[in-house]
Amino acid sequence: MPYSYIRDPAEIYRQSFETICNEADFSKFAEGSHDIVVRLIHACGMVDIVDNLEISDGAVEAGCEALKRNRPIVCDVDMVRQGIIRRLLPPDLPVLCGVSDEETAILARQNETTRSAAAFERLSGDWAGGIAVIGNAPTALFHLLDLIEDGAEPPALIVGIPVGFVGAVESKDALVQNSHNVPYITVRGRRGGSAMAAAAVNAIAGGLGA
Amino acid sequence: MPYSYIRDPAEIYRQSFETICNEADFSKFAEGSHDIVVRLIHACGMVDIVDNLEISDGAVEAGCEALKRNRPIVCDVDMVRQGIIRRLLPPDLPVLCGVSDEETAILARQNETTRSAAAFERLSGDWAGGIAVIGNAPTALFHLLDLIEDGAEPPALIVGIPVGFVGAVESKDALVQNSHNVPYITVRGRRGGSAMAAAAVNAIAGGLGA
Repeated sequence: MPYSYIRDPAEIYRQSFETICNEADFSKFAEGSHDIVVRLIHACGMVDIVDNLEISDGAVEAGCEALKRNRPIVCDVDMVRQGIIRRLLPPDLPVLCGVSDEETAILARQNETTRSAAAFERLSGDWAGGIAVIGNAPTALFHLLDLIEDGAEPPALIVGIPVGFVGAVESKDALVQNSHNVPYITVRGRRGGSAMAAAAVNAIAGGLGA
Repeated sequence: MPYSYIRDPAEIYRQSFETICNEADFSKFAEGSHDIVVRLIHACGMVDIVDNLEISDGAVEAGCEALKRNRPIVCDVDMVRQGIIRRLLPPDLPVLCGVSDEETAILARQNETTRSAAAFERLSGDWAGGIAVIGNAPTALFHLLDLIEDGAEPPALIVGIPVGFVGAVESKDALVQNSHNVPYITVRGRRGGSAMAAAAVNAIAGGLGA
């Protein structure tokens, strides 16, 4: 006998979002950022992520404006790019990731750094007025902040949600302490990842629509 | 002044794995599956994931054998496929995902189910002796179990780590309760995701090597 389970995608989304809205504490977030909170929780299955989630003033508006102006989204890894729902974006908006390019590997060896950080350096001319999204590599977030400090034109929004045990906590602390006046979305602590980073972009692009 | 942080990828991996080994409780896992435990924790930043992680007897051996025999890896979503480190696999081993195909969308509408479940149905002839990997959709895991029950030749290993609020808990419980004698790796509860699912495959393919 086949298992009994909900198969309708719209109903799965509806019940998921309903459960999240019932369980999560939205009190510290502005109403305009609730969709981001819901989608981030949805991506990771953890309502207590709100304790670590920080959405700076103006982040939603800056992200919406960047998309409206068709400015690029620059991702640290291919999984983030893959997680961004293309059909929610303006059709010709560039979603860029340089981590797998051969030129990036060469630059990473030259600079003695990670490919993610090197890829961000190569794409630092592209994110101006757009959205920089980090879902994996703390080194990319640190390097983004250093590049802005050194005069690179900043993105309109930083989605900085790297994950892990070396540099993730520290790079997100650095973002919150001094984002160079760039609005940001982050999840402090070790938790994070490509799915959450992509979810933040999807929420800005499409709210809770699939 | 630039931020001071570790930039050497090998050293980042080394320190990450060292932290995980110091903090996580490996006592319930066979020694042969420790690499999977480490990589799963590494993917999500949470050492307490071990409380929910279940690696059935023979899972590692079945996965290794499937790769050695060049059998396909079938993924429920593109993010899982993207997260699998291609260079750790035999060069011509197929890594398949049908979720974005037009034929899948048609079948999903016909069957009134999700595209992930429909994609698994379309690829049910491919996973025989290979690895079925679910990092997102509970419906794909439920449908995989139903298809095996209905006579589809089973995969050698099921990596069943869907995430979320509707069906994730239940589909993983169903897998543990009756996997039709197929070895499995799962993380019970709501937590899961593409990064963890891909990490399990990467551990089987390459241990802790990058």
